[in-house]
Amino acid sequence: MTDTIKYTLPESAIPKHWYNLAADLPAPPPPVLHPGTLKPIGPDDLAPLFPLVLIQQEVSTEREIEIPGPVRDVYRQWRVTPLYRARRLEAALQTPARIYYKYEGVSPAGSHKPNTAVAQAFYNKEAGAKRIATETGAGQWGSSLAFAGAVFGLEVQVFMVRVSYNQKPYRRALMETYGARCIASPSSETQYGRSVLAEHPDSNGSLGIAISEAVEVAASCDDTKYALGSVLNHVLLHQTVIGQEAIAQLALADDYPDVVVGCTGGGSNFAGIAFPFIGEQLRGGKKVRVVAVEPAACPSLTRGRYAYDFGDTGHLTPLTKMHTLGSTFMPPGFHAGGLRYHGMAPLVSHIKELGLIEARAYPQTQCFEAGVTFARAEGIVPAPEANHAVKGAIDEALRCREEGVSRAILFNLCGHGHFDMQAYTDYFAGKLVDASYDEKELAMALAGLPSVAG
Amino acid sequence: MTDTIKYTLPESAIPKHWYNLAADLPAPPPPVLHPGTLKPIGPDDLAPLFPLVLIQQEVSTEREIEIPGPVRDVYRQWRVTPLYRARRLEAALQTPARIYYKYEGVSPAGSHKPNTAVAQAFYNKEAGAKRIATETGAGQWGSSLAFAGAVFGLEVQVFMVRVSYNQKPYRRALMETYGARCIASPSSETQYGRSVLAEHPDSNGSLGIAISEAVEVAASCDDTKYALGSVLNHVLLHQTVIGQEAIAQLALADDYPDVVVGCTGGGSNFAGIAFPFIGEQLRGGKKVRVVAVEPAACPSLTRGRYAYDFGDTGHLTPLTKMHTLGSTFMPPGFHAGGLRYHGMAPLVSHIKELGLIEARAYPQTQCFEAGVTFARAEGIVPAPEANHAVKGAIDEALRCREEGVSRAILFNLCGHGHFDMQAYTDYFAGKLVDASYDEKELAMALAGLPSVAG
Repeated sequence: MTDTIKYTLPESAIPKHWYNLAADLPAPPPPVLHPGTLKPIGPDDLAPLFPLVLIQQEVSTEREIEIPGPVRDVYRQWRVTPLYRARRLEAALQTPARIYYKYEGVSPAGSHKPNTAVAQAFYNKEAGAKRIATETGAGQWGSSLAFAGAVFGLEVQVFMVRVSYNQKPYRRALMETYGARCIASPSSETQYGRSVLAEHPDSNGSLGIAISEAVEVAASCDDTKYALGSVLNHVLLHQTVIGQEAIAQLALADDYPDVVVGCTGGGSNFAGIAFPFIGEQLRGGKKVRVVAVEPAACPSLTRGRYAYDFGDTGHLTPLTKMHTLGSTFMPPGFHAGGLRYHGMAPLVSHIKELGLIEARAYPQTQCFEAGVTFARAEGIVPAPEANHAVKGAIDEALRCREEGVSRAILFNLCGHGHFDMQAYTDYFAGKLVDASYDEKELAMALAGLPSVAG
Repeated sequence: MTDTIKYTLPESAIPKHWYNLAADLPAPPPPVLHPGTLKPIGPDDLAPLFPLVLIQQEVSTEREIEIPGPVRDVYRQWRVTPLYRARRLEAALQTPARIYYKYEGVSPAGSHKPNTAVAQAFYNKEAGAKRIATETGAGQWGSSLAFAGAVFGLEVQVFMVRVSYNQKPYRRALMETYGARCIASPSSETQYGRSVLAEHPDSNGSLGIAISEAVEVAASCDDTKYALGSVLNHVLLHQTVIGQEAIAQLALADDYPDVVVGCTGGGSNFAGIAFPFIGEQLRGGKKVRVVAVEPAACPSLTRGRYAYDFGDTGHLTPLTKMHTLGSTFMPPGFHAGGLRYHGMAPLVSHIKELGLIEARAYPQTQCFEAGVTFARAEGIVPAPEANHAVKGAIDEALRCREEGVSRAILFNLCGHGHFDMQAYTDYFAGKLVDASYDEKELAMALAGLPSVAG
């Protein structure tokens, strides 16, 4: 019996609360600072951007935060997501490892992003917002928020990084099918966008620029709020349904991971799978190695500095302490657009400093090679972002083979690659290159970090 | 409570047998004829193309045919597929109807096709085949067989209609990711392909031509068999897991459909959802209206003749009695490539003649309009093929509203549209046209039908 095994759970097993890692940490993360005063910000500072409930979640130290009924009702459409034992992959790798993966690609938008998009849309609707403005890179987040907006009857306005807007028309089409308005960024719709265009009329855009535009729209319109798809505490919180479900599903398999692997861009899918396991460990449970895998071309955790920085290029956001390559750092183009962000979630950065997680960086061709191996064994084609987690898990499994040890490896397969087949086409054609950033530019971006004590 | 409801079942509820409608029919379908002798064919005639077990299934009159363990093991990766009560769509349509849909897009290839691809790959592997040759239009079938071939360690060679090969590189990339070889048809790899190219060097190809090429390869190589993704009895048989699961899931909802709707190209997803319900009715169960929805641009059931015809353009296949537009009929281009076939499954055609099903044809723009309404309400973007079923179901639901009657409507959402976003882009840009065929060409194609008594 070498076939892939699925562990399912009934709808009643969908978590009733999100898990808040902050409750179990030995030390709290550093405060978020106001960009003007450099003093810790309060709820009022964020009120123009977010509904109060999300601001409260951002700073909460409660261990369990109840998932509202209407959010769980929408989750039920695709949750509990399957947990698989990758028996066919194990056979292909000839490894004694027990490889498990949690598959978030079954959501309507094809990734883990709806876990937080639905929650954010719900709270915004409750708070009386008419519209949400956001940014998107490759489009996974934008399409997920568009889906959630359609469900709750909210207008969604997405600033999409221009290079992706032009190169990835199908994610844009998905957003429009859900009824969202998608705008290439930098755009002429915001003051910041116009200032960028004035200086660089041919700007390809970046996530940092698109964030500035969306924040500006939200800050200047009474009926409009802002939503972010990763990085912030409340976003990571909403993703913890993934890990909580995985714990219950692994119990069905009578197993527990020795290693948990996730890919990291802003940090949300990684947090989703990892935080519940880290929490169990902090409360006296089994020690688990937790590995964050990031692209070598944008290596905030492995090459960035742990320092206060802005979340955007226009410096409209508060300052958070995180592993950052500098807000002016421009990563080279690569296919995992969802991982092209200069900073890492403050909470993920904090636990890296606490020694609770490891980090590793891989070039994209190695990740695609791993993704193709996975697809041929398991039948699911991963998104380029997810290929980083696949690569990390396969490396762990190969180490088990070398050492002749059977370990349980769990990774998060955060999305399918059906919108990303051009990347696979390029890979097979030998056109995929491992572009690297310019070390001098990185040094300059780091030198430009705001000088904040702490 | 207006939210979409999911009805799930545990893995143990995956059907243990396929349901064979032939066992319950009041009259058997007409025999399949040898193209040379015009006499009914025997198993030996098909042996070069198919393994014996599939030939036996093709002519079986057993009601239940056991699903082999290894096939069920692969099915378990995504089956039982969800059955949804479309409460959000009902609310959007303000209809008293109870709308249910069975969602086959959760399979690794994104459609219902793996239900038969896995079975066919298994039987071919068992019979000692090294390779399977097949054809594909839009690519749903080719990618599903590529997936199944990867699982069972079989080479897969796909002749892809040239126009799709060029226009839909992403389905091709999916096949290649699974390790299959994809060839634009007409190709220079077969005698028939070369003959077409000699006459029409710029030929766009067609399903009929691609079938001829794949059949030729299988007939001329000892280690190679042929596989078809629709039309044949055994293919329809394998799809009946859909309807069997739906019956069990509707029992959870304490409901039973008044109307069952499916889209039809070759007829396999329609048969998959409909045959188990028709079987219950034939055995004395509740009478159900069954509606086949086809594209107005390729209307075999509503405009074709019920007559003996070839399955391919090269006239290498046996003759089957079916609703056909003539094997030389070239439908105009439209986006539901999976529905662009000149003939209808003989078994579906037969029960149409027996009065067990209705048929309806819609132009594609109306289907896309319905698909967008569905996507905004339910969050799932349907494949263009599936939009025909969505349109059929929405029309039934609107009739319920007009009549003030609550009926239960079940339809098969046979695949997601993540590979078909160009069609949605064209729809939003107003570029989608309702091309119609030339009536004179249809008349000529029908006049060219082989003259066979019966």
